[in-house]
Formats: sequence, C-alpha cells, structure tokens
Amino acid sequence: MKKYLITGAGGFVAYHFLKHLNALGERAEVLGLDLKISQNVRDYSFENVKLQFLEINLLEYRALEIAMVSFNPHYIVHLASFSSVGKSWEMPLESFLNNTNIFLNIAEIVRHNGIKCRILSIGSSEEYGNVKESDIPLKEDMLLHPGNPYAVARVSQEMLSKCYVEAYRLDILLTRSFNHVGAMQRLDFAIPSFAKQISDGVKQGQKEIKLFTGNISVIRDFIDVRDVVSAYFALLEKGKTGELYNVCSGKGHSLEDVVCMLSKIFDVQVLTETDPKRVRPVDNKVIVGSFEKLKEHTGWQPKFKLEESLKAVVDSMLH
Amino acid sequence: MKKYLITGAGGFVAYHFLKHLNALGERAEVLGLDLKISQNVRDYSFENVKLQFLEINLLEYRALEIAMVSFNPHYIVHLASFSSVGKSWEMPLESFLNNTNIFLNIAEIVRHNGIKCRILSIGSSEEYGNVKESDIPLKEDMLLHPGNPYAVARVSQEMLSKCYVEAYRLDILLTRSFNHVGAMQRLDFAIPSFAKQISDGVKQGQKEIKLFTGNISVIRDFIDVRDVVSAYFALLEKGKTGELYNVCSGKGHSLEDVVCMLSKIFDVQVLTETDPKRVRPVDNKVIVGSFEKLKEHTGWQPKFKLEESLKAVVDSMLH
Repeated sequence: MKKYLITGAGGFVAYHFLKHLNALGERAEVLGLDLKISQNVRDYSFENVKLQFLEINLLEYRALEIAMVSFNPHYIVHLASFSSVGKSWEMPLESFLNNTNIFLNIAEIVRHNGIKCRILSIGSSEEYGNVKESDIPLKEDMLLHPGNPYAVARVSQEMLSKCYVEAYRLDILLTRSFNHVGAMQRLDFAIPSFAKQISDGVKQGQKEIKLFTGNISVIRDFIDVRDVVSAYFALLEKGKTGELYNVCSGKGHSLEDVVCMLSKIFDVQVLTETDPKRVRPVDNKVIVGSFEKLKEHTGWQPKFKLEESLKAVVDSMLH
Repeated sequence: MKKYLITGAGGFVAYHFLKHLNALGERAEVLGLDLKISQNVRDYSFENVKLQFLEINLLEYRALEIAMVSFNPHYIVHLASFSSVGKSWEMPLESFLNNTNIFLNIAEIVRHNGIKCRILSIGSSEEYGNVKESDIPLKEDMLLHPGNPYAVARVSQEMLSKCYVEAYRLDILLTRSFNHVGAMQRLDFAIPSFAKQISDGVKQGQKEIKLFTGNISVIRDFIDVRDVVSAYFALLEKGKTGELYNVCSGKGHSLEDVVCMLSKIFDVQVLTETDPKRVRPVDNKVIVGSFEKLKEHTGWQPKFKLEESLKAVVDSMLH
C-alpha cells in the first residue's frame, strides 16, 4: 500500500488530491500535516484512503522528523506554503520561513534519515516575474525575474532542490504551478471572490449584480484544480528526478472573460466596478505557460475547460 | 560626520574596512555589530574613527531595529554572513537564516523606519556555481547555477535586494566578491592555511617543508582585501542603486602558483601533499571574474599584485 505524506493537508489542493487518490481505486495511506486541522477536514471520508491528520508546525524540525520517520512515506507531496504575494510584502520573513525553510527541513530530514521517497516540490508561476509578451507561452528554461519575496522564496526552494538532487541524489521533482481554479478555494482569490459576490446577489434576488474587481484586463493561465492534481499524480509516477515542470492549461483568459462566463452560468447581468484596493501595484498583462515538457515526460494533458471549472466553483457555492 | 553601520564587525574584512576608513583622514562614526566581539577587536584604535561595538544577533529583529534606529546610519556595510560552503551542507538551515534572513531583517527595518541610508549587500562568486571555461571571465549578467545552500542563500539575498529596490526604492548596492587574500584571514581558508604551515616549519628551522593541500590545480581570482575594501568605498560613493558588481582582480592564479610564490617569500623548499579531507567534492577548474562594470561605474581598479598580497599575509604571521 503506497504511503503519501501531504503537507498543507487542510488546504484546497490537498482536498482534490485526496479525492483523486480515492478515485484511483487502490488502497492508499495518507498522513496529512497542517498547522491547524479543522473539524471539516477531520471529517473527510474517502473509502480507499486510510487517512490520518496531524497538527504540526513544519518549522519545528524535531517534531517533523519524528512524524516523517514514523510514517516513512513513499511520496511526499509538499503543498504547504505561505502563498500570498500581498502578505509576502507585509511579512517577508514569515513568507521566507514558511516556504524555503520548511522545504529545507523536509529535505534535511529525508537526507539524514535516509527516507526512500519521492518528493514533489510545488512552485509557482510567480517565479517568472516580469515577463515580456514575446516570452509567452512561458517555458521552464526561461530566465526568472521574481518580483516579490514570495516569488524569491519559491525560486530559492527550486535552487535548493537542485542542490539536494545533485549532491545527495534526493528524488525531488519540481513544479511551477499556474493559477488554480476549482471548488473549495479560499475567497481571497479572484475567481471564488467573483463567484461569491454574484452568488450572494442571486440569493438576494438581484437581476443586475454589481461586482467589485481589481484589474480585470489581465490575462492568466487558469488551470482546473482537478487537472493540477492529475498532473501531480502523473509526475509522481513518471516525472524525472530533478526536473522542473510547468503545471498549466496553456490557455490564456482575461478576468473579463471569467466575469462574462460567470454571468452566463448564473444567468444574470453583472456590472463590474474597479475597487482600488483590489488593484495590484505591478502586474503582468499576460501570463500563460507551456505544458509541453510535462506532456512529453508523462503524457499528461489538461481535461477541463475554463467554463467547466467555473461551473464547479459555482455549484459548490450554490449547494 | 558620516555614520557607518558595519555588520560582521569582528571579521577580517571589517578590520580592513576600518583601516581604510581611518586612512581617508575624515572623521567618521562607526557602530560595529557582531554576534561576539573579542577583546582584540574591542582594542582596535583608529584615530579618525569614533568606534563603538555591540554584540547582537542579527536574527533578533527587535534588538536590531533598536540599534539601527538609534544609530541612524548613512551607510550600512553588511559584511556579516555564514560564509562557509562546507558548513552550509552541514547546517543548511543556519546558512539560510544567517544569510538571507538577516538581510531581510535589515531591509525590513530600513523600510519600516524610513532610515535614509545606502546599503552595501555583499555576495559571492560562489553564486555563479558550475561555469564553463568559455564563460570566463565571469560577468554579472550570466545565468547562475548555485551549487550549494550557501550559494543559493546568496542568490536569494540578491533577488530580494532587487525586489526592495524596485518596490520600495531602497538604496541597495550589490556585490559578488571573489576570493579574498590578506592579513588576519581565518586559517580555514587555503592561503592563510598554507602560509601558516610553512611559517610553522620555518620557525622550527626546517629547510624543506611538507605542505598539506586540497586540489591545488584549481585557478581562482584572488583579490587583496585592501582592494576589496577600496572597491566597497568606491561603490558607496559612486555605485548605482540596484546594480550588481563583481569585486575581483580579473586575474587567475592556481593554488600551485600560490605555493610557489609563498616558497619564494619564505625562501624555503615546499613539498606539497594532497590531503583528501581538503579536497572538495565538486570544484570548478577556473573561476575568474571581470571587474569592467565596477571600473566603468566608479573608476575603481585593483592595486595589489598577488605577490604583494601574499607578502602581507606572511608578514602578519611572522610579526
């Protein structure tokens, strides 16, 4: 029975990862780590997954070491991250500690205890930083220009991973994952925030709904979280040690497109209004990735269209 | 009167920095910070420099903030670092904390308290990592391949500096400094170790001295520490905010050359023997930098030949 250690186990991606794992039909064992595990998460029930949760601070080396050695995983799916760009400016130290340093703890524990496992280290499209439109679609071997402490921490994690692969032959795979979309995502992301605002209006019987947004002309590569987790499984199975993979849809959509699709799904009129607080100081006009390498190495391809992803977001809010 | 905050004030480079500052002839004020300040350092006396030392852990944000706000420097010369490559593999977390995270503390304190100062952030030629001989001499805009946790921490510090310059207009200058040589360097570096072994043999009256070395065929860019500190002064005065500068001699010498020069200075026969413990697992054959950019922006040039630098090392050991 394969054993998966999942960090950030209370989060949105972990939920979909567990759901996918369960759907595979084979028995699996999971130890899910997170700083806090809510009752809602403790209540997860997946018939094929033997699931245990543990509240732990990944910065506490000794506690983490005891957990990791005791569980002795085949796979480590390291989803935990301090992933907010905005907060990385408010708290750059915490952002660094909770990205780079927790990754270092994991790598060190695997190395020192000789744990035989494959580690999936998640990165972000933020690492590309300021890019020129001629660089689109972004490929893995591009020069990086990380523009905020979060992005720098992610690039550091990547560089460290490479050191550990080269010097200690650790079996680490790396991703740069693009904008996720799907049910259960936190409301501080644009799409769930839009869906929630419209859904609230609908529930109040409004036919013309005012939507507060940031800059909705920006074009992003939105990937369904179900495609994200299927990519992670493909990587765990077929990815090459030390290699770095974009996890993306390969398609660009503006947030205007998203608003338009949401208005169709809800069947209401939506009037957008720019909220200065939601406008980011510096933003790339277009971020779209290429998943050619991931496809070539694993055969993976995204399955869901943005409309379907948005439908899933809306469904989860209405039901 | 210009005020300099120097971190790593008990170290080798700080000593030469203070000496240079004193020789400038203008009155200056210095607050020197270090984890430990030895009596030897407390006894420094430079007539033109009003000097105060303070033992402080740069990871302690609040203590550092009080010191920095109270002193209110014009210049921050950030020399403190956990700079051992070998130890960065033994203690990668400490290496990260004591490079990237202390830098972050300094940048955050300057930002939050609006301290009007110029920050000199020191990096390392280690950041280049594995390079091809066709890349020599190394220029600042090359792709980096950091090969150990220390080098990754330094690259992170650089990327963070750029974020702080762009997002908050902090006045940060960056260096990648190459192999230092000069009096007072710690004995765990190759050149002082060689000089010490030979000097000990000479003191014992040996005429043919056995010298234990690592791989002495490697070629490095050795720069006199007096040239290093004059480069730092040139940068503080004329460097451009947000720019990155190699600080190097532009010349390559093998450690064999060094042994040969030392044997001439001491006027003894030296027989080298390879000590496997001193051989590094992965090592670049040649590392030589280009200082064209530094010269162009500031007019700085190195003054000392390697022979003169070695003479200074030997003199400090014999007297």
